[in-house]
Amino acid sequence: MSRTVYVNGEYVPEEEAKISVFDRGFLFADGVYEVTSVLGGKLIDFAGHAARLARSLGELEMDSPVTDDQLLEIHRELVARNGVEDGLVYLQITRGAADRDFAYPKDAEPSIVLFTQSKPGLADSPAAKTGIKVISIEDLRWGRRDIKTVQLLYPSMGKMAAKKAGADDAWMVQDGQVTEGTSNNAYIVKDGVIVTRQLSHDILHGITRAAVLRFAAEAQMKVEERPFTIDEVKAADEAFITSASSFVMPVVEIDKQLIGNGKPGPVATRLREIYLEESRKAAV
Amino acid sequence: MSRTVYVNGEYVPEEEAKISVFDRGFLFADGVYEVTSVLGGKLIDFAGHAARLARSLGELEMDSPVTDDQLLEIHRELVARNGVEDGLVYLQITRGAADRDFAYPKDAEPSIVLFTQSKPGLADSPAAKTGIKVISIEDLRWGRRDIKTVQLLYPSMGKMAAKKAGADDAWMVQDGQVTEGTSNNAYIVKDGVIVTRQLSHDILHGITRAAVLRFAAEAQMKVEERPFTIDEVKAADEAFITSASSFVMPVVEIDKQLIGNGKPGPVATRLREIYLEESRKAAV
Repeated sequence: MSRTVYVNGEYVPEEEAKISVFDRGFLFADGVYEVTSVLGGKLIDFAGHAARLARSLGELEMDSPVTDDQLLEIHRELVARNGVEDGLVYLQITRGAADRDFAYPKDAEPSIVLFTQSKPGLADSPAAKTGIKVISIEDLRWGRRDIKTVQLLYPSMGKMAAKKAGADDAWMVQDGQVTEGTSNNAYIVKDGVIVTRQLSHDILHGITRAAVLRFAAEAQMKVEERPFTIDEVKAADEAFITSASSFVMPVVEIDKQLIGNGKPGPVATRLREIYLEESRKAAV
Repeated sequence: MSRTVYVNGEYVPEEEAKISVFDRGFLFADGVYEVTSVLGGKLIDFAGHAARLARSLGELEMDSPVTDDQLLEIHRELVARNGVEDGLVYLQITRGAADRDFAYPKDAEPSIVLFTQSKPGLADSPAAKTGIKVISIEDLRWGRRDIKTVQLLYPSMGKMAAKKAGADDAWMVQDGQVTEGTSNNAYIVKDGVIVTRQLSHDILHGITRAAVLRFAAEAQMKVEERPFTIDEVKAADEAFITSASSFVMPVVEIDKQLIGNGKPGPVATRLREIYLEESRKAAV
């Protein structure tokens, strides 16, 4: 069955979901996006994603074609029309279509596209029970990773490098320190302390990251926000990632070396439970 | 009058020139491009652009949906249908449409889009007589600028920063050394020596750059391929850029300081003449 996709004000079958080849999202990667998880038919942390979207748009001097209320309505309408119980809503806004020119067009209308992906059992991923394997790669992305743009080719290449190496994902390293995963924030746990890189232009300001750090603090866990090295990862008691679609996911191996005992650790496991429980409660 | 655009095997009016919102060019900037100039209805250095396209595709493990002969035919057909005397042909190939996943899809067909832009008097740009002004900005692009991908948001931001500063373009600086302009290679001339950064992952391997350096050597001009600083630019006798659409363009000011006497210099002027003359002769 064909999904219904939202494109610039209209709900259309996915086969008809098209944008102009002159759209700056296509020609210049001049666009931003968000991915919001759906659990039990409800949106997880919608307000956080809407706020980050506004920030990304602001950094690029781009207007939003919709209000937050309209955005919520479109999310809910797509979830309903596509019968999504567990899954994702993907949203992209670009600067719109205009004849090709590096300079921003004066009169283009922003484009907006949303679609859903059903992922039955999203919160019960088998990977959460075994943990995932990562490799380390150099971080070659541009310098403003805090803006959630569609310039995602390098993360995509990183994911492929991981697959070729028999791993699930890649952690990126800049000046000897881990920045983040290809589409997630990275954490280690050592002697009961959770370590994750501090916010800056170097990493995405994860919505799930913010929630998990808040829950960790509420649970009296110690958190240090600072960079860490691959050697620290190898010597860590446990490691994990967070993202909107993987929630909290244990990492049990890096560059073919086990982390801790090679099994999901208690901190990641507990944070995953808390995050899912609290997020379901607050879902809209 | 509406242009005719080529999209995946069909010639369509530009209003109907659309691609799927699931195209990875739109979602991941997972695509490469080329821009070929047209002078007198003929293509400038088509073979060079076709060769670089093949290299970009190869670096991304992407297949081309067309042969070089087919590509040339499409270029010529678009130039003819749109009556382009002077202007450009833009070409983009992406990994194609597939449900969104960072990993490359196994079964997607690459997408191919070409369109023209008429630019009457392209070779007689008034800017070539006055020279252009640039500002310097930090180079925040990703680390593989030798692959001509559509991850062009930062160059686009750089062009806007230049416009806001009353300039025409921006030269990007990494570790204190100029890499290149937002959509062109950068050169200075000092004591009769042309200096331009050597090829590496740090810069685009300009087709016009290769031709101009060849012509410079043939004209017994001295060329040094090495990085240079903004201070060297300010102390230079002259400066210029090269690109497929600007050919050789003098740069007469950087960060509000005149370069040399603030007028197009003899080396840039001579190289522009040679480049245009030789390119017209070899156009196809």
